[in-house]
Amino acid sequence: MKRVWSLTIVLVMALLNAVTAQNKTIPSKGFAVLAADGKFKPFEFNRHALGDNEILIETLYASICHSDIHHVHGDWGKEEFPMVPGHEIAGRVSKVGKNVTKFKVGDYAGVGCMVNSCGKCDFCKAGLEQYCKDVVLTYHDKDQFHDNEVTQGGYSNNIVLTENFAIKLPANTDMKKVAPLLCAGITTYSPIHYAQVKKGDKVGVAGFGGLGHMAVQYAVKIGAEVTVFDITEEKRADAKRLGAVKYVNVNNPEDLKGLDNSLNFIISTIPASYDPNIYLKMLKIDGQMAFVGLPPYAKMPIIPIDKLIWQGNRKVFGSQIGGIKETQEMLDYSIANNIYPEVEIIPATSKAIEVAYQNVLDGKVKFRYVIDMKTLK
Amino acid sequence: MKRVWSLTIVLVMALLNAVTAQNKTIPSKGFAVLAADGKFKPFEFNRHALGDNEILIETLYASICHSDIHHVHGDWGKEEFPMVPGHEIAGRVSKVGKNVTKFKVGDYAGVGCMVNSCGKCDFCKAGLEQYCKDVVLTYHDKDQFHDNEVTQGGYSNNIVLTENFAIKLPANTDMKKVAPLLCAGITTYSPIHYAQVKKGDKVGVAGFGGLGHMAVQYAVKIGAEVTVFDITEEKRADAKRLGAVKYVNVNNPEDLKGLDNSLNFIISTIPASYDPNIYLKMLKIDGQMAFVGLPPYAKMPIIPIDKLIWQGNRKVFGSQIGGIKETQEMLDYSIANNIYPEVEIIPATSKAIEVAYQNVLDGKVKFRYVIDMKTLK
Repeated sequence: MKRVWSLTIVLVMALLNAVTAQNKTIPSKGFAVLAADGKFKPFEFNRHALGDNEILIETLYASICHSDIHHVHGDWGKEEFPMVPGHEIAGRVSKVGKNVTKFKVGDYAGVGCMVNSCGKCDFCKAGLEQYCKDVVLTYHDKDQFHDNEVTQGGYSNNIVLTENFAIKLPANTDMKKVAPLLCAGITTYSPIHYAQVKKGDKVGVAGFGGLGHMAVQYAVKIGAEVTVFDITEEKRADAKRLGAVKYVNVNNPEDLKGLDNSLNFIISTIPASYDPNIYLKMLKIDGQMAFVGLPPYAKMPIIPIDKLIWQGNRKVFGSQIGGIKETQEMLDYSIANNIYPEVEIIPATSKAIEVAYQNVLDGKVKFRYVIDMKTLK
Repeated sequence: MKRVWSLTIVLVMALLNAVTAQNKTIPSKGFAVLAADGKFKPFEFNRHALGDNEILIETLYASICHSDIHHVHGDWGKEEFPMVPGHEIAGRVSKVGKNVTKFKVGDYAGVGCMVNSCGKCDFCKAGLEQYCKDVVLTYHDKDQFHDNEVTQGGYSNNIVLTENFAIKLPANTDMKKVAPLLCAGITTYSPIHYAQVKKGDKVGVAGFGGLGHMAVQYAVKIGAEVTVFDITEEKRADAKRLGAVKYVNVNNPEDLKGLDNSLNFIISTIPASYDPNIYLKMLKIDGQMAFVGLPPYAKMPIIPIDKLIWQGNRKVFGSQIGGIKETQEMLDYSIANNIYPEVEIIPATSKAIEVAYQNVLDGKVKFRYVIDMKTLK
């Protein structure tokens, strides 16, 4: 009889523990937009309870990607609000689930555009989780692995996710500069390597912002001869400083002369409307062009197939960020080669974020705004 | 004094010879359209005199390419008339210039889409004459190497061109079937090899007409598993007969199911308006899609770059015919492997050509009309 009582107590305790754990949602606070009006407000919400394979990260820095602005403004279709943007996150691990092996409390961790995927499909198996149909994006997505909760991003004091989707950041990393690598870094690193850019190649980088200035550095590091394309005179010196051999102001017809059939590889990071065909003409035979910048749907650039045919034997492709394994590889490579974004640190206030957004839209940022989330009040 | 007279006579004779030779334009007759009305008329004209490096070919067969129809109808912009179409030509050499070494009288020769190019640029040096900015097309072009005369094509009893742009046809070739190889053959052979299609690859052939049925044969020969896409039930059995494992009627939504992310390579030969993005979705990661069919400008299919990004790490490219060296390689390969178009022979009359054009537009040809130019009256 005593034994039965003991067993019952054990079972009840276990059940209570499970229920408690399930209910231990994690309070979080940050900044959200409540509608597609670009206005940020302080915002408190709950993240799901820490799972056995998950880690909790206290956000140190979150940077502002141009795609945050597109989402906030509804440029890519209807969005759900409130929305806490942010998919370039660097932080410190403050709690680990019981099965976690990759991180321990106190480690540094990064989060990019994804927080989960099915893990079983051909894409996941190939380390290309970004193409998994069940991929869970870091924000503005439904997390089917957590009762379809709406994911919220890095403009907040913490984030919880499976260890598999967190990137290890060595303790000696310059934390305030590392966040942009998680999207701007991998989004440019991946197609440059996918296209097998090599030493001596002539490379064009179209759009010289957050992504573009990373692309320049990766291509220069490989030993490519880089030409930068943008629409302002104000970035000419910066391009040279980062190692470009040439800067083309696309608004200046003189600058464009003599470029036809001259480049082995072009990466377009342009987030606004433009004519991709002026770049196609610049590709050498066997050249390749990668598209990573995604303009608003209403102004999406198009390639009529006759342009592909007239400029035959050149290949174009799109690329989305990169898989988790490649993201870790990019991060290790960037740190080993001292490749970092150039950043402007801003405080964690609604006002600072809104000003930063406007400056990005006006092309005034050099090159990435990073929110110091430690200053959150 | 006698010696001076002799010298003078020799010089005068040489001069006369030169002038005569220059004036010895070559009479030609065939069929032309006089306006963009699709009406063919018997037409007589002169071709330039045979140059030292040129050969004169008596046309045996000329086939009807869908692009002839586009030109005749002005689908690709303003055309000059009268126009004698035809860039798939098989014939016999009847005269050779004094420096010709590749052919002798009585040899068989083929002519495709080009009759000359600069020979000096990077493209020409690389055997990619089709991309030379000074390339001279077989018809509807200005021949800058011959006083800007307007070139006239193969629906005629002869053609004169530099031996460098004529393709050697072995005497044992089935001459009535060989003409379409000069455009339909090379246009599909080239991108299939450029994309390095290999045994076991899953290949899609979109558009199952003159080009498409050649693409199927080349891909099957390599050992690829071929799926054919068209918009009719009438070609289903033909696709299987030529070695395809699957036929998809694109107008039948059921047929399209389960094809996403399934193909390594797709070649689109479609000459009419369509949505290329339904095919992009079918590409596996690392897959490639080649565009060779060129619809009318007014209905040109487009690829918005977001489609490339969502379907990332797949490459698309256009391809124009192939260079002369590769065309000879394709021809030798086709004959060695018994790969020929399926042809319907028609007599050399205006009426027969007009009926054939309408049948091509109605998708009724299987698969290439070939005009028997020997029947020309």
